[in-house]
Amino acid sequence: MKKADVVVIGGSAGGIPAAISCRRRYPEKSVLLIRKEEQVLIPCGLPYIFGTVGSPEKNLIPDAMLKNNGIELTIGEVEEIDRDKKVVSIASGETVSYDKLVLATGSLPVILPIPGVDKENVFSSVKDVAYLSNMLDKVNKSKGIVIIGGGFIGVEFADECKKNRDNSVTIVEMLPHCLQLALDEEFCIEAEKVLIERGIKVLTNKRVKAILGNKQVSAVKLADGQELKADIVIIGVGARANTELAEKAGLQIGPTRAIAVDRFMHTITDPNVFACGDCAEKYSFFSGKLSRTMLASIAGAEGRIAGANLFDTRYRNCGEIGVFSTIIGEQAFGCAGLTEGMARQEGFDVVTGEATAPDRHPGGIPGAALTKVKLIFSRDNGLLLGGEVSGGRSTGELANIISACIQHMMTAYEVSLFQMGTHPALTASPMVYQLVNAAELAVKAMAK
Amino acid sequence: MKKADVVVIGGSAGGIPAAISCRRRYPEKSVLLIRKEEQVLIPCGLPYIFGTVGSPEKNLIPDAMLKNNGIELTIGEVEEIDRDKKVVSIASGETVSYDKLVLATGSLPVILPIPGVDKENVFSSVKDVAYLSNMLDKVNKSKGIVIIGGGFIGVEFADECKKNRDNSVTIVEMLPHCLQLALDEEFCIEAEKVLIERGIKVLTNKRVKAILGNKQVSAVKLADGQELKADIVIIGVGARANTELAEKAGLQIGPTRAIAVDRFMHTITDPNVFACGDCAEKYSFFSGKLSRTMLASIAGAEGRIAGANLFDTRYRNCGEIGVFSTIIGEQAFGCAGLTEGMARQEGFDVVTGEATAPDRHPGGIPGAALTKVKLIFSRDNGLLLGGEVSGGRSTGELANIISACIQHMMTAYEVSLFQMGTHPALTASPMVYQLVNAAELAVKAMAK
Repeated sequence: MKKADVVVIGGSAGGIPAAISCRRRYPEKSVLLIRKEEQVLIPCGLPYIFGTVGSPEKNLIPDAMLKNNGIELTIGEVEEIDRDKKVVSIASGETVSYDKLVLATGSLPVILPIPGVDKENVFSSVKDVAYLSNMLDKVNKSKGIVIIGGGFIGVEFADECKKNRDNSVTIVEMLPHCLQLALDEEFCIEAEKVLIERGIKVLTNKRVKAILGNKQVSAVKLADGQELKADIVIIGVGARANTELAEKAGLQIGPTRAIAVDRFMHTITDPNVFACGDCAEKYSFFSGKLSRTMLASIAGAEGRIAGANLFDTRYRNCGEIGVFSTIIGEQAFGCAGLTEGMARQEGFDVVTGEATAPDRHPGGIPGAALTKVKLIFSRDNGLLLGGEVSGGRSTGELANIISACIQHMMTAYEVSLFQMGTHPALTASPMVYQLVNAAELAVKAMAK
Repeated sequence: MKKADVVVIGGSAGGIPAAISCRRRYPEKSVLLIRKEEQVLIPCGLPYIFGTVGSPEKNLIPDAMLKNNGIELTIGEVEEIDRDKKVVSIASGETVSYDKLVLATGSLPVILPIPGVDKENVFSSVKDVAYLSNMLDKVNKSKGIVIIGGGFIGVEFADECKKNRDNSVTIVEMLPHCLQLALDEEFCIEAEKVLIERGIKVLTNKRVKAILGNKQVSAVKLADGQELKADIVIIGVGARANTELAEKAGLQIGPTRAIAVDRFMHTITDPNVFACGDCAEKYSFFSGKLSRTMLASIAGAEGRIAGANLFDTRYRNCGEIGVFSTIIGEQAFGCAGLTEGMARQEGFDVVTGEATAPDRHPGGIPGAALTKVKLIFSRDNGLLLGGEVSGGRSTGELANIISACIQHMMTAYEVSLFQMGTHPALTASPMVYQLVNAAELAVKAMAK
């Protein structure tokens, strides 16, 4: 029987950082990472295979990350965990004993409980190279694609599947707006406008009743009776924690149907078994309540905590802030923390500030994109609760600045004095730097 | 005699934010801004007039910023301040009484004390439209430009003056490397490499002895005897605080030859007179020692503090962190806080971490640029002291994330758990996100 100090099950956004973090903190410990995939796809890159990137093979996480950090790799499916003996069994028959175990088994796409979802040419974001290669072939030949779900995944699939193709692409969203779970209404409307300009049909407030066709899909039927012709359907309505192995091992599953963990990423059930990433239960940074947000970046932070805590408790998970960004055509959107709507729902007395300026200066400089920042503060104590951005390519890192300010519990007063560097070709001008101006306007509003 | 609650003297990076901040905090107060320039240039945009932007008229700060915030504007030169009577006198003969006065008179280029600096076609970064228009005409006709000084301004002038022109551009720098006062050696070498690739000659460790020629410049003579042919010389060796008016008014000038101010931006001499921006004395965020760093972004932060403190003391200036960014060709450089070299000079026991990754993911995605982040921490307490970045267009905002982390006194442990959002087209992948990985490697190094 093989032996490793640490066994990590899962080789993506949670497992890799957990393994690396362990090797960095405990260089004397041996780490074996077991994953079932021959090749691992970059999870957030899946939609981009269909336009910008061009093939699943160009969207892989290189195994060099493991080798360079002295992590052993076994490809195979773990079928069982014997927690008493501290041994995992792989489908090949191999067994490995561990001292500490990390579960990073990720998530699976949610399958809608509607008739016809099992028809040919109904796809979802399955993280498998062969599956995606087949899907790409079909998308290339398709004339009509219906995408069910207008969240980030749905919107990104729509934009990418439309690129350089003479086809029809339609998003069907149940809620009043696309991206509504991540952005305030005004940003959602802006995003929908860009989608429509790019030739994508956007149907909101619509429920899907059935997927029609014989063997293959031919149309999508909505609850209002409307039928949308389609030779391909892509379902992007979210993901559920992959807990099969954990359940089999008798580990407690929490109310969000993910593996129950404490703030140190130990499973509630077994102090020698850790879980991180999409398969592990999450808490909101703001309320401490259970959260269903799944992001590769959260998986990474959790993986780092798990890896660092394996043999000594070093880090506490502060809970997920939720930082997203995306781009539709050349218009990027980002957010960190709570939207105004979410903050009000949580009962905060909210003050917002908003500022718009070009992301380069002077505004007429080539490549400048008008970029808007909205910040959300608690009136009571001035704390930054969240922010949203729409604009040019710096939007992703602007959302990350907001995240840094949230994470360190900055107030509007502090953000209004933020010392940023500025440069004509790289940022807004110092006088109109959006983050600072949005905060100053919020301070003004608080004074009222 | 005219009357205003607040008079701001100076209409650029310090004065405008001071005026706006005052109006936002004290909407009942009247604010009059007096400046001598008909049109105000974006200060950090000056070099870009010569390549990317194309003319001084395209590099102006719009007066709408003042109007929209209810700030009155007078164009004229203030000749005298009577602090007893609280009255300023303008060259036109007009006088204005004030309750609070803000000096934001900025800086002037340092003139080198060498023979020949007064010859025709010797320029510096003078913030004046007519001056720059003439300079642009000359640059367009020039065959040989010598730039004295390889700091940010010198490097930017060099890159811009070379663009789309068949000319020879040479930088002469006294120190062993260009940009050495802002970046560690390895980044300076990288920047010099890019300059050279772009056809710019870089002479370091060279002192200028004289500027030769008759009426017009014909060559630059170095201390080692070498003569560089030139029909234009641009001097970019720094700036000095413009304190003429303040001195005349009997305000104390500090050891760095800027107006002495306290942490609330009051002048030391007169609690009703504030100063901010390049004309005001600065302190380092790290050591509290006097600092000579002048940046439009620092001026903005100081202006906001001054404006907010005019009638109640609200904000304390934490001192300047120093956040810069620039771009040479398509290679951007940024820094926030102390470099490794500066930190060691200050006596810190330093630990660094460095991580390089493409700024999009997968790495092969169009437009991806390899981006390096180096972070500098104090070994003793883990505090982040500084960071440097080189890479793609997000470099400016990445430096700003580092600034946010410095400003809130994050440790390596905290930065290694930073919750960033990631997106294929906008950021590095979550697994290789440079800031987090650099911090984690520093934590590893600390454990040794």
